[in-house]
Amino acid sequence: MIYCSNCGAKLTRKVPEGDDRARYVCDSCAIVHYTNPKIVAGCIPVWRNRLLLCRRAIEPRHGLWTLPAGFMEDGESTEQAAARETWEEARARVEDLALYGVFSIPHINQVYMMFRARLSTADFAPGPESLDVRLFEEHEIPWDDLAFPVVKLTLEKYINDIRNKEFSIHVEDILRHPARPR
Amino acid sequence: MIYCSNCGAKLTRKVPEGDDRARYVCDSCAIVHYTNPKIVAGCIPVWRNRLLLCRRAIEPRHGLWTLPAGFMEDGESTEQAAARETWEEARARVEDLALYGVFSIPHINQVYMMFRARLSTADFAPGPESLDVRLFEEHEIPWDDLAFPVVKLTLEKYINDIRNKEFSIHVEDILRHPARPR
Repeated sequence: MIYCSNCGAKLTRKVPEGDDRARYVCDSCAIVHYTNPKIVAGCIPVWRNRLLLCRRAIEPRHGLWTLPAGFMEDGESTEQAAARETWEEARARVEDLALYGVFSIPHINQVYMMFRARLSTADFAPGPESLDVRLFEEHEIPWDDLAFPVVKLTLEKYINDIRNKEFSIHVEDILRHPARPR
Repeated sequence: MIYCSNCGAKLTRKVPEGDDRARYVCDSCAIVHYTNPKIVAGCIPVWRNRLLLCRRAIEPRHGLWTLPAGFMEDGESTEQAAARETWEEARARVEDLALYGVFSIPHINQVYMMFRARLSTADFAPGPESLDVRLFEEHEIPWDDLAFPVVKLTLEKYINDIRNKEFSIHVEDILRHPARPR
């Protein structure tokens, strides 16, 4: 962030009066440009005890498997964002969304909101950002080829909850360094 | 958003190639400037069955009562944001945070994440954005003087859950027009 999006002047990085952290401030038009974490919304789509995963056609982690998820857009609810991403990446329609995980990742300024969901039909296909989309039985999950730590964490929790036959909502942080117990 | 924060050129509003919605695009340096919903994190701070509310010293809704809450900052987890806001607005320390409500408000591009929390001590005081901070018994809650619909909704759910002696996590949308059943 170099120029003011409001007036085009060069920005200064400083602590505004009455604030306690550095911001991008425009000395010309006096606007403070705040930056905030983004929500990544996604689904754990399920069809008859099998889970849907997508193989990424884009960087980062091209070729690795992921749950359908992406940045929430303005004007959406979290569920709408999760269902839209599932459509875009896996051409699959989901229903009965239930919040399952809220995972803060402070070092990349993201909060993942993952929903359990039922596939409405068995129809699915790779969207433009996917090489492949498949349903996996529990024992088939490609643990060594998952794209992101948050995907591994979500699937681990989910498989564990299946085994215990009890689903709860998981609220955890994913830290850059080896995770500390919370 | 008028100028590119990267190169200072004037922005164009258009649908980028391969996208399906209008964005702020820089024709000069080719950057797409995405905008996304923000998370507002806050607490329902409790001290011996009484709830802490803050009377707003700032607009909007100056003089009305609210739960301590505010925009999550980069580098934080959702719980850290909720606890920080409680300190800033009510000079109160909280512990044992438990996610209670995830309320999407699509028309203002916000997602509220409200946590139940216990006050660590009975110490509290108005921060710079509060005129007053008080503990309220259930029957004392100032229903007609609450600042925002999301505060009213959170408190209604909470009081209802107290009466039923069972707390769940509530995921709901708050729509501009009269709420439709979901």
